[in-house]
Amino acid sequence: MSMKGAAFVRARQPAQKQQRYRAILDAARELAERDGVGEVSLGDIAGRVGMHKSALLKYFGTREEIFLRLAEEEWQVWAPRVVERLDALREPDGAGRLGEDLVAETVVDSIAERPLLCQLLAYAPLILERNVSLDAARSFKKATWRAIDDVADALHRVLRTVSRDDCAELLTAGGIAAAGLWQAAHPPPVLVRLYGERPLPGRADRFCAVDFSAALRRFLQVHLTGLRHRHGAPESGGDPLG
Amino acid sequence: MSMKGAAFVRARQPAQKQQRYRAILDAARELAERDGVGEVSLGDIAGRVGMHKSALLKYFGTREEIFLRLAEEEWQVWAPRVVERLDALREPDGAGRLGEDLVAETVVDSIAERPLLCQLLAYAPLILERNVSLDAARSFKKATWRAIDDVADALHRVLRTVSRDDCAELLTAGGIAAAGLWQAAHPPPVLVRLYGERPLPGRADRFCAVDFSAALRRFLQVHLTGLRHRHGAPESGGDPLG
Repeated sequence: MSMKGAAFVRARQPAQKQQRYRAILDAARELAERDGVGEVSLGDIAGRVGMHKSALLKYFGTREEIFLRLAEEEWQVWAPRVVERLDALREPDGAGRLGEDLVAETVVDSIAERPLLCQLLAYAPLILERNVSLDAARSFKKATWRAIDDVADALHRVLRTVSRDDCAELLTAGGIAAAGLWQAAHPPPVLVRLYGERPLPGRADRFCAVDFSAALRRFLQVHLTGLRHRHGAPESGGDPLG
Repeated sequence: MSMKGAAFVRARQPAQKQQRYRAILDAARELAERDGVGEVSLGDIAGRVGMHKSALLKYFGTREEIFLRLAEEEWQVWAPRVVERLDALREPDGAGRLGEDLVAETVVDSIAERPLLCQLLAYAPLILERNVSLDAARSFKKATWRAIDDVADALHRVLRTVSRDDCAELLTAGGIAAAGLWQAAHPPPVLVRLYGERPLPGRADRFCAVDFSAALRRFLQVHLTGLRHRHGAPESGGDPLG
């Protein structure tokens, strides 16, 4: 550390703190993307940043706060990107059956390219949200709600026959589906061994080779069709405004 | 322990072991239903049964094997019960729109009355399956696949316009949705505090008071409608056999 006098050191402090904060998040992200969120301990993160665990705990109250903060950042990066791509879809065609499939594909691609977000979708409710401060929970939830609202608005701009509320419902269901499908598509070693055994009973094969993007795309297509036919579409006699 | 000679003690061993095995499962179930699966440690279970942890580990290799075995039992109890109720629906009416809603309600009721199963649906892929032996994983997965196959058969018997494969797809999607919706409907204390704050941003209210049965029923209804309209129903020009 440079020692050009106490005044200078103090002035550098906020920037240093910000740097450390960022380094902790980056280390947690790298480890989680390599080993899986469930395998990464607070000690692992501290070790990678080169800090003592006690020093790290001045930045984040718990291991879970680090990952919840990463999930918050993921929502904040994901939302404007998919909004931009959805808005770009509005130019070439309308919102017929084919348009819906294109919309589903656009949403799925935007999620599939963020594997950490996909992992964290399942960990957030089960693990992360259970071991964080109220401030951390509030900050995360507000980012989540904001992301869903912004993307629902964009979906409604491109799928005009689907109500704004149905668009939000589609995203909420899609988020839950993405959480589960990601886990199914990334089985742990013991399941990989099991899935390699032959013969497997009955129709078990289809559970053993889940393609995340294909499965989520199919899910969104089916659910969107269902929403439109249940009360979103004029031809079903429903109220287009939900 | 009774000491009527070694021969007698040996003869009682299998029954005793079976009793212990059962006592461990019952203790884990009681603690998980009271405190939540995530809060129950191996030590908690051992303490409740009155065994040492080392003795308990002769029955189950890990804490996760105990809960995965409970999940396996839950599938095995759930499937025949819902099959029976679905088969009973075949008598009074056909399989029109109203029939579908009744089917969704029947499935939801059968799941909602098994809160341990609902909890374990989320824990199994994220936690349990990652820390068990191959034998435990195989036994659990076979029970899961069998349950889905049996219930899909029953669904197809009552929803004749929906293909057998679509019935299985509905159940798989429904299981993933149930896992996520159960967590949303049972938030941890820090989220209960957050949800009580006013004002909440935008449309956040609807995320703060999730009714598990109502949300899962709506999910199944929408998804079933979507499956039927995408390729299951004659009126959409699809192949009724999928």
